[in-house]
Formats: sequence, structure tokens, C-alpha cells
Amino acid sequence: MYKVDLNSDIGESFGAYKMGDDAAVMCAVTSANVACGFHAGDPLVMKKTLKTCAEKGVAAGAHPGYPDLVGFGRRNMKCTPDEEYADCLYQVGALKAFCEANGLKLQHVKPHGAMYNQAAKDPALAKAIAQAVKDAGEDIILMGLANSEFEKAAKELGVPFAAEAFADRGYMPDGSLVPRSQPGAIIHDVDAAAKRVVRMVTEGTVEAVDGTVVSFRPQSICMHGDTPEAVEMAKAVRAALEAAGVKVTNLKEVVLG
Amino acid sequence: MYKVDLNSDIGESFGAYKMGDDAAVMCAVTSANVACGFHAGDPLVMKKTLKTCAEKGVAAGAHPGYPDLVGFGRRNMKCTPDEEYADCLYQVGALKAFCEANGLKLQHVKPHGAMYNQAAKDPALAKAIAQAVKDAGEDIILMGLANSEFEKAAKELGVPFAAEAFADRGYMPDGSLVPRSQPGAIIHDVDAAAKRVVRMVTEGTVEAVDGTVVSFRPQSICMHGDTPEAVEMAKAVRAALEAAGVKVTNLKEVVLG
Amino acid sequence: MYKVDLNSDIGESFGAYKMGDDAAVMCAVTSANVACGFHAGDPLVMKKTLKTCAEKGVAAGAHPGYPDLVGFGRRNMKCTPDEEYADCLYQVGALKAFCEANGLKLQHVKPHGAMYNQAAKDPALAKAIAQAVKDAGEDIILMGLANSEFEKAAKELGVPFAAEAFADRGYMPDGSLVPRSQPGAIIHDVDAAAKRVVRMVTEGTVEAVDGTVVSFRPQSICMHGDTPEAVEMAKAVRAALEAAGVKVTNLKEVVLG
Amino acid sequence: MYKVDLNSDIGESFGAYKMGDDAAVMCAVTSANVACGFHAGDPLVMKKTLKTCAEKGVAAGAHPGYPDLVGFGRRNMKCTPDEEYADCLYQVGALKAFCEANGLKLQHVKPHGAMYNQAAKDPALAKAIAQAVKDAGEDIILMGLANSEFEKAAKELGVPFAAEAFADRGYMPDGSLVPRSQPGAIIHDVDAAAKRVVRMVTEGTVEAVDGTVVSFRPQSICMHGDTPEAVEMAKAVRAALEAAGVKVTNLKEVVLG
Repeated sequence: MYKVDLNSDIGESFGAYKMGDDAAVMCAVTSANVACGFHAGDPLVMKKTLKTCAEKGVAAGAHPGYPDLVGFGRRNMKCTPDEEYADCLYQVGALKAFCEANGLKLQHVKPHGAMYNQAAKDPALAKAIAQAVKDAGEDIILMGLANSEFEKAAKELGVPFAAEAFADRGYMPDGSLVPRSQPGAIIHDVDAAAKRVVRMVTEGTVEAVDGTVVSFRPQSICMHGDTPEAVEMAKAVRAALEAAGVKVTNLKEVVLG
Repeated sequence: MYKVDLNSDIGESFGAYKMGDDAAVMCAVTSANVACGFHAGDPLVMKKTLKTCAEKGVAAGAHPGYPDLVGFGRRNMKCTPDEEYADCLYQVGALKAFCEANGLKLQHVKPHGAMYNQAAKDPALAKAIAQAVKDAGEDIILMGLANSEFEKAAKELGVPFAAEAFADRGYMPDGSLVPRSQPGAIIHDVDAAAKRVVRMVTEGTVEAVDGTVVSFRPQSICMHGDTPEAVEMAKAVRAALEAAGVKVTNLKEVVLG
Repeated sequence: MYKVDLNSDIGESFGAYKMGDDAAVMCAVTSANVACGFHAGDPLVMKKTLKTCAEKGVAAGAHPGYPDLVGFGRRNMKCTPDEEYADCLYQVGALKAFCEANGLKLQHVKPHGAMYNQAAKDPALAKAIAQAVKDAGEDIILMGLANSEFEKAAKELGVPFAAEAFADRGYMPDGSLVPRSQPGAIIHDVDAAAKRVVRMVTEGTVEAVDGTVVSFRPQSICMHGDTPEAVEMAKAVRAALEAAGVKVTNLKEVVLG
Repeated sequence: MYKVDLNSDIGESFGAYKMGDDAAVMCAVTSANVACGFHAGDPLVMKKTLKTCAEKGVAAGAHPGYPDLVGFGRRNMKCTPDEEYADCLYQVGALKAFCEANGLKLQHVKPHGAMYNQAAKDPALAKAIAQAVKDAGEDIILMGLANSEFEKAAKELGVPFAAEAFADRGYMPDGSLVPRSQPGAIIHDVDAAAKRVVRMVTEGTVEAVDGTVVSFRPQSICMHGDTPEAVEMAKAVRAALEAAGVKVTNLKEVVLG
């Protein structure tokens, strides 16, 4: 039986500022990437978010980002691998404490935004992040772009890895994402997106933007969570997967067991 | 055989800013209160500090403070117990990750500055902090002012507690510290300070500013670390204690073992 | 002819976080208190907000707050007058630059949240803020609670002062606000609020929560801006004032002539 | 008579953290680049620094940097021109208020660290910064690397520009700095550095690392301020310039008058 995880970014509110409809999103996904206070989130938001994860049975992961709150962690920064390691371990440790205070085990780590994009292509940064995941505890899964430096670093260090796919993004023939500036970057049609995801999980392929069939089997599907449409898409993808006989379950079960 | 711990604040540098001579201080004390990034310290400083703790055999504790870097956590803030809990758990979790990455167990938590002073007198804040220590893991010791709300909260929640004394501070007849604005607040004479500490540990008493003998037996002595004189005082206190047959050892052995 | 200003807090978004419907509020008020980056707002938000002020003909003031973004500047902090002066002058200077870049003169300064509440009762803090307003340039108006330390400090230093009233708050017989924890603190009825405001402006009195008639003539009325109801109240108050023959105009015209 | 300005970075302390010996440096230079709170400095430090500038007769400029305190503004960040403009105008406005509160006119703006290095090569960023300088007030000088995008942007927008040279850095045949990773990047010999500066100012040339003579006449010489040696070099350079009949005076006199 095929299994796949659905993940979404959660807990991105900060102080008096609200972002996203976490409660609705958490009803649709199986794993939450929880912001850790650098690019979004704050300790009180983390406390509330982990309580909700525990109540709804959603597996929790850390979503560390650059120390750039005003830029929401989306701006590239030139950090050293040593800084990247420390920034990750710090945020992962903080989130792990809130997990454990709620009786949960930290399931995974998925870097956010520019940290994710830069490390996916940079072996030294990817290795620094994988080392932080390794040092944060046993059996914590590093989630990242398939075929990226994350995957190589995780293998090299013996860290469990999960490849993620994006339900609403187009793919290039080499398996990378179509840049947002190009046609076919975003798939707006919910049904089309749901069908693509089912195909990825059951057949292990995706049709690239030029029609090429690319071999690709993700362990997790990233669902965006900050728009009402996003919740609809998450529900549609989940329903399509279940109709196709795929078990939608959290990442730990998909990857480790 | 009498035992006592010597603690000092460590790891207070931040980015390009250096503070204190951590290496010298760590040669004189047995427990380090490591800044966690809110009032001082940053992830890279924490990484280096824990590495040094591991190398020098100094036990590591978290030193959480208010989110007030420009004020060094010394300005009173009106936080709710819920905020205080979350701010503490966040910082303790982050520091714990660096401990474990260096093969160390987090030994204790000692709140910093205004967080320490405000919670020492406020039952709700003290309880919030004690709960955060409890939720952060087993056998983590809360270190605080003797006879304060910290001690009550720790007992109520079943959290191990360590009372600390200050080598260079005068005491009031009720066991509280002489306010810094009053005569006798600070003891500058190194020998006098060392003798007072020996008496506290071996006889369980201290002479208050008015001559009253106060009953008082601390588990840890706080040594300031940010001046050259402070290192001298730490060495003198340690020598005097050892000369009096007191075993100077880390807090875990004093409190738990 | 009676004149009065309507003010509202504006520009409280931060990075990716949105707050309030500034465009709608700015159609209803005559003066904007613009957040300056410490408790809310960021440089890009300030740039956009001042552009809108210039386009809509709303007079702009600085709304400095405590350096406590996660607490939205609402938590009391124990700052020295020297810190308060510097924090204010910094924020006022920053906002003034955006005013002038848009061809506007900085009209006023209204401290935010806990900075407002603490200084209203503390002569040293109020004087520090008034001095910062004076040092920031000529003819900048300090806006604050009527009969507060702000008013005294402004008079002492020769800084133009504007007393503000709250359309939706109850008053005590001594002219202070009914604490939010007590009955009568908030006036929810829009018509009642509008009538009160007309009476304050035209008769110079307000009926206190116990029925006492208090003498009180504000130069500005504070309209809250962060709820849809708030915009409705602002429109209703404005309409009622205009129906009563009051000229609703910006603070500079009300105070300076 | 030849004239030249000596500039140094000043006011880089932050809260409890001290950096540099500002008093000593300010005795040796004629213009201070004052940190504005993003990469270093805080409002209280700015207040004290401007008071010292006024007392010592040193001209004050703003030294805006990236919002990256932990990285001291030295890490490249991918900001948009719009963000760069707003970040600059914000910081320049804040510093200008402290200047005026001390009876000084803001003389110049010199971007710091990574903001300086990135904009020197990027026309859109350089133009955004020059626009912020222009919008901050009349006759404010933009100081930057000679022959850089700063110079082009300043000319295009009609902003006064000052080219700076580095006393202790080697130059490439094209007038750019020898990268720090290459031999000849740093000139440690104080006499050699002083002679080079005299030649730049009086002959308008500098000998590049390969022996080529490059045409180059700076309006200001950057003296580093964060080491004891730096103060010595500043004094030596100043003495050599004065011995050669060069008037060492602030940038305003060199550029505008």
C-alpha cells in the first residue's frame, strides 16, 4: 500500500500579528512545519501550536529560518556553515522542548524559505543543517527538495531523509521546480494538482512542463497554508489520494516505519 | 563532607561583541549559567560556549532572560506567566540542544537579571518558570534566591531546587540582599568575602549588615564573571573553601547526588 | 467655530504581517499616528504609509513605542528617562524623514501603548518625551491624555500640546479613563459615542460614569482603527460633528491655528 | 592648498556591549560615520556619540547598515532597492535627529559593511541609497568607493559625492581594492600607509599591487577605529598629511566648500 505525508507551514503568527488559518490547515495535513521564532512564530505561538498539534494528532516538525523577521526569512543571506548549523540547532532545540512538553516527539526538520533554497544547492550549508538535525536527537527526519544537496548530506551523515513534492508547482525535465518567473510555474487547477500528486505517489512519475515524464516518488507533499484556496487544495489532494487507495499518514510512518 | 557549587554567568558575548573572559572564569567555577540569546548570547556563541564547558568539565545550565537585548535583560518588563513560561521553555530548549550536541546533560536553569528579580517575588511568575523547567526534562535543577518564590514554586511542582548565595553581597536580617543603593550592599574585600562563603557553607550562617546572625546554607555561590577582579575573587573563594575542607563540585552532585 | 481633529493609529503592519485597514481608516480621520518600527511598522511600511498620508491629505504624526515587537509595545517596561528620550527621538527622527521625503511636515508625536500609559503618570518620563519632541524640530505637537504628566511637561518645556479624548471610553469624575476591568469602561453604542464627542467639543464637558459632569475640551479624538466597527464609529463621529457645525480638521489647524 | 577628510566608524557600541575607543579615534579624525541601530549602535549610544561629536568638533555622518545585528551588517543580504531605500532613509532620519538635537547638521551618509559592498557594484541598490540621501535633506554628501556605482548614482541624482580611499588597503590596477584573500591586501606598515595617503592627496595617484600607477584622488581617507593600532595609524596619517602641507578638515569643507 502506498503511503504519503501531507505537510504544511504552521505557527507563523507573531505577537499581535496573525497569519494563516492554522486550525483549518491542521485538519487537512498530517505533518506541521512549525516556525521557530527567527523568521516567524514566537514562544507563545509555539506553545499554542504544539498544543493544537497534540490535540489534532498532527506530527510536528521544526521549520527553522534565517534571523530575518522583517523579511519573513525569504531574503537570501550569506551565512557560514557554522552559523547555519548553530541557527538550526538553536531553533530545533527550542521547538523540540515545546514538542516534549506536549508529549510529542519532534518528527522532522524542514528549513524555511531562503535557508531552504540556498542550502538545497550548497553542499556545505546542506551538510551543516543535516549535522544540526543529527545532533538534535535520534530519528529526526530531514525534509527537503528531492535530488537536492539535502538528500546527499542526509545520506552522508546517516540522517533519515524525506523528499517532498509541491502539489501546485510545475517541474522541469531535470526534476527541479519551474522558476516562478516562467509559464507553468504554478498549477492553479485543484483537480489537475490532485491528479499529479496521485500519479507521483502511485506511479512514481510526474509530467514535466515540456511533457517529459520524470521519475519522482516523494514521501511528503507540501500544501501551502496561507490562503483559503490552499485549504481547499489540501482537502482535494487528500481525498484524491485516499480514493486512489493511498494511505495519507505522517512522515514518520512513511519514512521510518 | 560539605559540598558547594560555584556558578557564574557565561557566554554573554553577541555577534561581534565580546563580553567577559569566559575561559578564565570557567577555570574557577563548577557550573556555568549560559546565556540563551534573548538578553545576551547568540547561537554561535552558545555552540562555542558548550564546547568549552565540555572541554573544561564545567556543568552547563540555561540562563534565560527577557527579550531585551539592548537592555541586557536588566529592565523590568510586565510579562504574563504564560509569556514567561514560553520564553523560558524556548530558551532552555535551545540551550539543551547545544548541551546534548556536546555530550552534556543540561544541569540547571537560572533566570537572568530582571526575570530573576521579578519572579523571585512573584508567585505566578516563579511557578511559570518552575513549570518550564519541569517540562524541559527530568532532573533539571532550578537555581534561585534562597527563601524566594522560586523555592516555593519548585517544591510545589516537585522540581529540584538549589539556593544560591552571593559572595560579594551584603545580607539583610531577613536573608534578603542589601539593596545596591544602601551601604554594605557590596563586599569589595576578597578575603572577607571568602571567609563569609566558608561560614555559610560550613556553619550555615551569614552575618547580616546589622550584625544579626542569619541561618543560611546555600548549594551554590554566585561569582560574577565580567571583571578581572571577579576572577580573582572566584579563585580566592575556591581556595578558601578547599582549605576549609569543603568539596567544590558541580550543582548536580551537591543537590541530586 | 469649533474645530477638532480625529486621530487613529496607522501603519502597524510589519513585513509579511498585515494589520488594520489603513486605507479605510485614513478616509475617516484627519491625523495619523504612524508606527515607527519599534512596537510595529517597518521602514517599508512607513514609506508606503507616508505616501498614502500625502495622497489622502491626512496629517502625519510619529507613534513611537517601546522596543518590544513581540509584545506590540503594550507591556510595561522600566526604562530610564534617558532611554525614553533616546528611543523617542530615534523613532521621531526616522518618521520625520519619511514625512519630508513625501513633502509633509511632521505634525505631532503621540507615544504608543505602555510608553503612553507609563509616561502619562510619570513626570520624569513625560518630560523626557516632551524634550525629544522639542529637540526633533519646531512646532511639533505632543499629543497625550488630557490633564496628564504629558500636558505638564509640554507646558514646562514650551512644547505645543494637544489633549485627546477617546470616543468609546468612559470617564471617571476626575477626568481619567474608567479602567477596562470596570463597568462603563467601553461605550459600544455608536450613536452614544458620537453624541458624547459632540458635547465634549461644543460644550467642553463629558458625563462621567457616575453622572458627574466633568469639564473637558479635547483637541483631538482618538478613533481605534483595527476593527471594521472602528471605521463605522469614525464615520459616525465625524458625521455627528459636522452636523453640529464643528469643523473636523487636522491637529495643526486646531492647536496652532 | 590640498584638503582631505579623515573618516572613521564610530558609535558601534550596543546596550551593555562596548566596541572601539571612540574618544581616542575622534581626536584623530575629522568625520565620524555613526552607526544607526541596525547593524550596531542604539538610540542611547547615538545620543552620547553625537554629544561627543559636538564637543570635539567632529562632523557627523550616518552609517546605515543591514538589519543584521548578530552579523554586524557584514553578511550579504538580498534586499530589493525599495527595501534598501527605506532602510537607509529610516536610519539616516534617526541619526539626523540626534545631530540636530546637538546643534549639528548631518554632513554625510556612508553605508556600512555588506550594504556598502553590495551597492558599490549594483546600480539599482546604489541609486536607491543615493535617492534616500537626497530625500533626507539638502547638501548631504554620499560617501563611497571611488569609481563605484555610488559615484554614478550620486551624479545621476545630483547628490554631492565624496570618494574615499583606504589608508591600509592595497589597490588593483583598475582602482579596486585587493581582495582580502590575496597578498598585498593589507598594508601593515604605518609609515608606508601614511606616505601612500600623502601621495594620493597631493599627486592624485596610488601605486597598485603590481606596480602600476593608478590615477586616484580621494576626498576622504577611511581610518579603521577598532584597534589600538588603528588610532596610531590615524595619528601618523594625519601628521604626514599636515607635514606635507595638506589641510586635514571635514568632508563638507573638502567637497562643498
